[in-house]
Amino acid sequence: MLEEYSRQVIEEVEKRIRQYLSGDVHELYEASRYLIEAGGKRLRPLMLVASSDLFHGDRKRSYLAGSAVEVLHNFTLIHDDIMDQDTLRRGRPTVHVKWGVPMAILAGDLLHAKAFEMLIDSVSGLDEARANDALRLFAKSVIELSEGQALDMQFEERWDVTEREYIEMVRKKTAQLFACSASLGGIIGGGTEKDVKNLFLYGEKIGISFQIVDDILGLTADERELGKPVYSDLREGKKTILLIKALRDASEEERKRILAGVKSNDQGKLRDAASLVLTISLEYATRLSESYKTEALQALSLVKSDNEEVKKLLMEVAELVTKRRK
Amino acid sequence: MLEEYSRQVIEEVEKRIRQYLSGDVHELYEASRYLIEAGGKRLRPLMLVASSDLFHGDRKRSYLAGSAVEVLHNFTLIHDDIMDQDTLRRGRPTVHVKWGVPMAILAGDLLHAKAFEMLIDSVSGLDEARANDALRLFAKSVIELSEGQALDMQFEERWDVTEREYIEMVRKKTAQLFACSASLGGIIGGGTEKDVKNLFLYGEKIGISFQIVDDILGLTADERELGKPVYSDLREGKKTILLIKALRDASEEERKRILAGVKSNDQGKLRDAASLVLTISLEYATRLSESYKTEALQALSLVKSDNEEVKKLLMEVAELVTKRRK
Repeated sequence: MLEEYSRQVIEEVEKRIRQYLSGDVHELYEASRYLIEAGGKRLRPLMLVASSDLFHGDRKRSYLAGSAVEVLHNFTLIHDDIMDQDTLRRGRPTVHVKWGVPMAILAGDLLHAKAFEMLIDSVSGLDEARANDALRLFAKSVIELSEGQALDMQFEERWDVTEREYIEMVRKKTAQLFACSASLGGIIGGGTEKDVKNLFLYGEKIGISFQIVDDILGLTADERELGKPVYSDLREGKKTILLIKALRDASEEERKRILAGVKSNDQGKLRDAASLVLTISLEYATRLSESYKTEALQALSLVKSDNEEVKKLLMEVAELVTKRRK
Repeated sequence: MLEEYSRQVIEEVEKRIRQYLSGDVHELYEASRYLIEAGGKRLRPLMLVASSDLFHGDRKRSYLAGSAVEVLHNFTLIHDDIMDQDTLRRGRPTVHVKWGVPMAILAGDLLHAKAFEMLIDSVSGLDEARANDALRLFAKSVIELSEGQALDMQFEERWDVTEREYIEMVRKKTAQLFACSASLGGIIGGGTEKDVKNLFLYGEKIGISFQIVDDILGLTADERELGKPVYSDLREGKKTILLIKALRDASEEERKRILAGVKSNDQGKLRDAASLVLTISLEYATRLSESYKTEALQALSLVKSDNEEVKKLLMEVAELVTKRRK
C-alpha cells in the first residue's frame, strides 16, 4: 500500500509546490525550485498527510501543509550546503555552486517565506485554536532548526561532544521537522491533544533514528547512490554519533589514527579513520537507531485512530527510515 | 509630539525584541541581536503602531507586530550585507564580518522565523479574517523583498535599467515593508478595508521616497554620520535612480567618465563619477522623492480616523523620511 499511497501524496504535493514556486523574477524562482525538482524522498509530507488521514482530515489542507514542510526542508538544505561548503546534493551540484552564494541565500529565504505562506493558506478557515497551534508549531520548528544547525557547526570545533549533546543537537536539527510534520497532520486532521503529542513523539524519534542512519550512510554508502560524497562528515569534522562513540572508546593509538583522518584532505587517512570508526561504532549506532525506531512505534501505537490501514503505513515509514540505503 | 511618542514605541518594541531574541545557543542569539542593538531608526514599528492608533487599536498587539517588522527588516539587512559584501553598517562591522558568513546566514534565518513567531503571537485571538489578512500580508511581503533583492542584484550586471524598472525593484525591495507596516497597523487596529488600502499606499510611497533619499545619501552623506562607506553603491554597480538618470542624460564624454568610476576601486575615479552623477541627477532625484512624499500624504489624508494627533504624527514621519541626513 505504501507505494501507491506515497505516489499519490508526492504527485499532489509537487503540484502545489510548482504552483506556489512560480514568479516573474525567473532566475530566483529557478534557483529556488532546482533542488526540490532534483527529487528527494518526500518523507515529511508523507508523514504529515498520513497523520492527518488517521483522523480523516481534509486532504486539501494536508497536501498544502505537506508542501509547506517539504519547501521548508529544502530551504534549510540550501542554506546548510552554503554553510558546510558542500558541493553535491541529490547527485547534482548544490544551489550555491550553480548560482553563486548570493542567489542561493536568496533562494533559501524565498522558500522560507513561501513555506509560511503555504502553511497560512492551509490552515485558513480551520478552527481558530488549531490554526494558531499549527502556525506556532511551524515557527517554533524553524527556530529549533536554526539552533540545531548552530550547534552542529559549533561541534565541528570541539572534540569533547557527548552523546547527550549530540542527541540534543539532532533533536533540533533533524528530528524537530519530522515531529512537526507528524503532529501538524494531527492538528490539521482533527486529533486530540494527546494524539498530537504522541504523533510529535513518533516523528521526533523517527527523526533521531533517521539522522543516526544518515551518519552511518555517510561512512558506508555508495557515493553514486547517496548523491553526495562519502566521508564528507569526517572531512568537515562533524561530530556524528559514530565519531563520538569512537573517540570515547578508541585506544590511544586508534585515537591518533582517527584524529589524523578527521578534517584531512588525504583520502588514505580519511579512509583509514572511517574504517576504524566503523569497526568501533557501527554496531552501536545501528542498535541505537533501531531503539529510537522502537520508541517511535510505541508512541504511534498510543494514537487513537480507526484508520488501521494508515496506521500500518506510518509503521512502514518508520521501518523504511531505519532500513534506507540512501 | 513625535519625539516623545517615538521614544515610547521604541522602548516597548525593544523590550519585546529582547524577550523573543534570547535562547540557549548563545553565539547564535548574540549574532542575531547584534545589528538590532546597534540602533536603527525604528521607522517601521513607529509607522505600524501609529497606524493602529488611528483606530485606537490594542497597543499590546501593535507593539508586538511592530517588533515583528523590525526583526524582519534586520534579517534582510544581515543577508543583504552578505550578498553585497558590505563590511560596515550602523558604524559597526557587519554580522558576517564579525561572526563569519555561516553564522550570519543562520542569524538571519533565525530572525526571519522569529519575526513570524512574533506576528503570529500578535494576531492570536484577533478576529479570524483580520488575523489571516495580517499573516498573508506578512508572508507576501517577505516574498516581495526577496524578489526585489534579486532584481537589485541582476541590475548590477545591466547598464540599460530604466526608471520604470528601478521603481518596480524599489517597490519590492524597500517600499513593500513600509507598506506592510502601515497597513498591518490598519488591519490589527481595526481600520476598514479602504483605510487599510490607503495606509498601504501611504507606506509604499514613503518607502519609494525613502529609497531615493538613500540613493542620494550614498553619494552625499558624511561617512561617519551615515555609518557605512559612501560611494559603495557606485563601487558595486548598483543602479540607483541617480545613476540611471545620469547614464540617460550624460553626453558621450560624461558617460565615459561615469563608467570609468562605476565598479572601480580607484577613489579618484569614483569621486569624479560621483560628482558628475550628482551634477546631472541630484535635483531630479530630490524632486522625485518629494513627489512620492506628496503622494504618501494624499493617501494618508483619505484614511478615516478621529485621531487627528496621530495622523499629524504620520505626516511628520513622511517629512522626516524625506529630510533625513542618515
